[in-house]
Amino acid sequence: MPENYPLETIRHSTAHLLAHAVERLWPECSIQWGVGPVIEHGFYYDVAMERKLSDADLATIEETMVTITKEALPIEREVMDKGEALDFFRQRGQEFKVEIIESLPENEEIGLYRQGEFVDLCKGPHVGNTGELPRAFKLLHVAGAYWRGDERRPMLQRIYGVSFREKKELKNHLRLLDEAKKRDHRKIGKELNLFHFSDLAPASPFFMPKGSFIYNRLVDFMREIYRKFHYNEVITPQILDSNLWQTSGHYEHYRQNMYFSRIDGREYAMKPMNCPCHMLMFKHYKYSYRDLPLRYADFGRLHRYEKHGALAGLTRVRSFCQDDAHIFLGPGDIGKEIHSLMDMFLICYRHFGFKDIRINLSTRPAKRAGSDSVWDQSEKALEESLKTSGHLYSLRKGEGAFYGPKIDVEISDALGRYHQLGTIQLDFHLPERFCLHYTDSDGKEKRPIVIHRALFGSLERFLGVYIEHVAGVFPFWLAPEQIVLIPVSGEAHSNYVKSVEKSLLARGIRASVDNRNETLGYKTRWAQKNKIPFMAVLGNREMESGEITLRRYGEKTTETLSLEKALILFEELNGEAIPLEFR
Amino acid sequence: MPENYPLETIRHSTAHLLAHAVERLWPECSIQWGVGPVIEHGFYYDVAMERKLSDADLATIEETMVTITKEALPIEREVMDKGEALDFFRQRGQEFKVEIIESLPENEEIGLYRQGEFVDLCKGPHVGNTGELPRAFKLLHVAGAYWRGDERRPMLQRIYGVSFREKKELKNHLRLLDEAKKRDHRKIGKELNLFHFSDLAPASPFFMPKGSFIYNRLVDFMREIYRKFHYNEVITPQILDSNLWQTSGHYEHYRQNMYFSRIDGREYAMKPMNCPCHMLMFKHYKYSYRDLPLRYADFGRLHRYEKHGALAGLTRVRSFCQDDAHIFLGPGDIGKEIHSLMDMFLICYRHFGFKDIRINLSTRPAKRAGSDSVWDQSEKALEESLKTSGHLYSLRKGEGAFYGPKIDVEISDALGRYHQLGTIQLDFHLPERFCLHYTDSDGKEKRPIVIHRALFGSLERFLGVYIEHVAGVFPFWLAPEQIVLIPVSGEAHSNYVKSVEKSLLARGIRASVDNRNETLGYKTRWAQKNKIPFMAVLGNREMESGEITLRRYGEKTTETLSLEKALILFEELNGEAIPLEFR
Repeated sequence: MPENYPLETIRHSTAHLLAHAVERLWPECSIQWGVGPVIEHGFYYDVAMERKLSDADLATIEETMVTITKEALPIEREVMDKGEALDFFRQRGQEFKVEIIESLPENEEIGLYRQGEFVDLCKGPHVGNTGELPRAFKLLHVAGAYWRGDERRPMLQRIYGVSFREKKELKNHLRLLDEAKKRDHRKIGKELNLFHFSDLAPASPFFMPKGSFIYNRLVDFMREIYRKFHYNEVITPQILDSNLWQTSGHYEHYRQNMYFSRIDGREYAMKPMNCPCHMLMFKHYKYSYRDLPLRYADFGRLHRYEKHGALAGLTRVRSFCQDDAHIFLGPGDIGKEIHSLMDMFLICYRHFGFKDIRINLSTRPAKRAGSDSVWDQSEKALEESLKTSGHLYSLRKGEGAFYGPKIDVEISDALGRYHQLGTIQLDFHLPERFCLHYTDSDGKEKRPIVIHRALFGSLERFLGVYIEHVAGVFPFWLAPEQIVLIPVSGEAHSNYVKSVEKSLLARGIRASVDNRNETLGYKTRWAQKNKIPFMAVLGNREMESGEITLRRYGEKTTETLSLEKALILFEELNGEAIPLEFR
Repeated sequence: MPENYPLETIRHSTAHLLAHAVERLWPECSIQWGVGPVIEHGFYYDVAMERKLSDADLATIEETMVTITKEALPIEREVMDKGEALDFFRQRGQEFKVEIIESLPENEEIGLYRQGEFVDLCKGPHVGNTGELPRAFKLLHVAGAYWRGDERRPMLQRIYGVSFREKKELKNHLRLLDEAKKRDHRKIGKELNLFHFSDLAPASPFFMPKGSFIYNRLVDFMREIYRKFHYNEVITPQILDSNLWQTSGHYEHYRQNMYFSRIDGREYAMKPMNCPCHMLMFKHYKYSYRDLPLRYADFGRLHRYEKHGALAGLTRVRSFCQDDAHIFLGPGDIGKEIHSLMDMFLICYRHFGFKDIRINLSTRPAKRAGSDSVWDQSEKALEESLKTSGHLYSLRKGEGAFYGPKIDVEISDALGRYHQLGTIQLDFHLPERFCLHYTDSDGKEKRPIVIHRALFGSLERFLGVYIEHVAGVFPFWLAPEQIVLIPVSGEAHSNYVKSVEKSLLARGIRASVDNRNETLGYKTRWAQKNKIPFMAVLGNREMESGEITLRRYGEKTTETLSLEKALILFEELNGEAIPLEFR
């Protein structure tokens, strides 16, 4: 009976198993190992070898890995001093290991692990013998990776693998990976013609008509929510003098992510955030306690430089908009405002089908602005508001922003992957830097507190997450095309279909007619492929009865309704644009 | 009986009259004259003198000017050679005149005009004597102006004046100036709290909630029009590689107006126009003749550097959005498209209350891209489309864009001032530079033609013009606040007012309650000052009958209606958002 090793140990030993198998298979390939750490769901190992590994090679390696587990080779720890270890790995031609050992302190004890003919520099721990490793692993793919992530160092082959305790866990994970590949928003974005990228504007999406339609509906959605919660939308500049970014602290803390431009002998930056603009707006007028809480919402385009390696479709872009808002308020209003924000957030997330929601409270980081007493005050305010509103939350010590503590909200998507979307950040710091004031009920000048909040976060990123969550099947109210009408054949059917289209358009339903010179089968497949919520094939029967036969996306059965009933159904579905609680 | 001199001659002689009066009034002030040209409605004269001229001085100067007209001094031309003229003006200490004479050719005859003790260097012509000058002039104000517009040269005082043939023309002009001052969109923008500027973002407006509301409604308006005319909105990047701007020709022709930023060793520019993005989008897919005309609309934020001196409120900004669209089409579709565009433009302009509309056709400029045969083709296409659609137009030879001919549309505002708003530009050039193709019905690859069009032009500029046109009194459908409800006194009235507000809000009417602790008079004046379309003071009578007493902005009488009738009225007025023709 094998010991109940931690999963991390199993994964680490499986990485050694992989390396062992590679050396056994291609002893002539002058193999040099880099690092082989445990990662989420598995491990990787970086290798320099003459052979370029193919997918077929991965299958062969897996077979040899299984063979080695059958051999149940004991895995034994050895210890050397630094000099011995350097000699040992130098002799074996493991130059990357030599480099690692050289960086260790002089009198440190160096650990090695040996299993059969394979030896690796390693801190451990490992399982007792290769036979104890569950055969619930899979090598996924090979990617290029620079040694130490430095593009001036050699490019290695990084072999990615996953491993679990049980085969059924592996199977389940591989099914999820497969599903994730199918739902990849970059793939769906291409298939549905939603957006694309160009090398001329790295990480800056071009939204095609259907993508723009959905994007704009998300903005409309948030505007409707803003109306209910008494937010005021503002429109602010994008290019502002560096003096502003010095006042806000972005110049000091965020400069390397900003785009700068010199003109008229002045240095300007493209805004990476809206907050400094809203501070200026607040400062421009005189406000009293009666005007608070004052809520400025802004869909302004933001630009943040991200390294090329960090970019991935819509989920990490350089050019984006947020459903960004700043709330100016007095200390007495914080509790009520956080409560109302949590309501807004949770209702909206559920509306988009995100049922599993995690709340995190992040507190003061090591590198921070502002005095400890202000941090005490603001952390306490958030914590008490969360407690009063009765939501469960996790405490993330030290993970707050440099200017204040924050609440993060994460949602779990259809594949159980968590994504951080919303944030609520308390800021006692910016109002200080901008010397903001309001007149309180006692006639005295007081400093407002600011809450930064975003529910979607970046609209681009939300759209990326959401496309994968719904696998490109948007709800009726959000679908760019809601129903496609297909005449069976001939002019009479065509005319009937056109009259139905007219009735639908007049009631604000996004209907279109597929009049192309193609077969019925082609057209119904096209409607499916484009994930249009409804299709209606209309022929003699419908023409005679004045009815409409509907097929919902993904269903095999159809339903025949009077046109009026269909219109009522569609209007009801369009009504779902706004959560029931806010209608 | 005085000769019927051209107005330009009268204005020029009035400028001399001004200079004559100044010299007579302050002979001790070592006065040196710069230039004194005729401008629209009048003239100015630049002067360097020890005295800083005040508004009271302007009145004194006007009096002396009248005195000199009464003296009916003959105005006589004299001629000198260059040497004599230099001596003459040097002796009189007129160093700017000396500089002008020095720049003239050696053997040119130099003209001078003398009236009484006053002599000026001048080409003429002038009226015969000062008595012939109509006393229909007025000095408006004094502004600083650098000699020769060069900030390294001395700063002079520029005295502005207007002059006309008849006193009633002057009176009319002064009334218009006065009205224009009252309607100045910068003034109204401040009064109604619509927008403001900050030196940290020169010429980039901060739109406050009410300004943003109107701005977004203009976008919504255009989106509705786009729906009718089958445009597709897209969203495109803002920062693009300089290679793109080289392809488009902007790098060569427009570079000095663009903002650049270097990152990752690449040069990027903020887009000054959307067109190159749309070219890339067209190129990204394969299109056939069935897909054309293809219309991409884009409200993307644009940035254009304008010199500080050229900036004026919203009408000339550095950061703005256009209702911009590009239409890709084949040559056979041009006529129909222009026709439909002219319909769209004229109906929409009339909808915003611009009744007097001028159309201009601008043809090839001297500095241009593309072959003459392509210019022949495109000018002919526009001209024929205009002729077929039956609109009168003026030909502006040589005023086209460098890439193609264009139709400009100018509207006259409530003060009779013309503003160019819309443009329709034909472009055979960009599709060439971007190598665009579509598959025609004969299966062959053809090059599309592009139409650039904007109806509002810059939304910022349109808003500036429109605010002045309506003097800040927006139509009901566009007003950020549509009706303010004022309880006469006490809790019962307050409750009734709240119930009325609830009914109005539920029907989408932008109603609010003025519950401040102020007098009725204060509140009604506030509603007037804020130009809110309706106010309703509600007391016992209304509470008992369940009615509502409405007063329209600018009217003195009130009207009492049942709540339901008022709701129907308001819904009708909201229905006016879209022109009747497009509903």
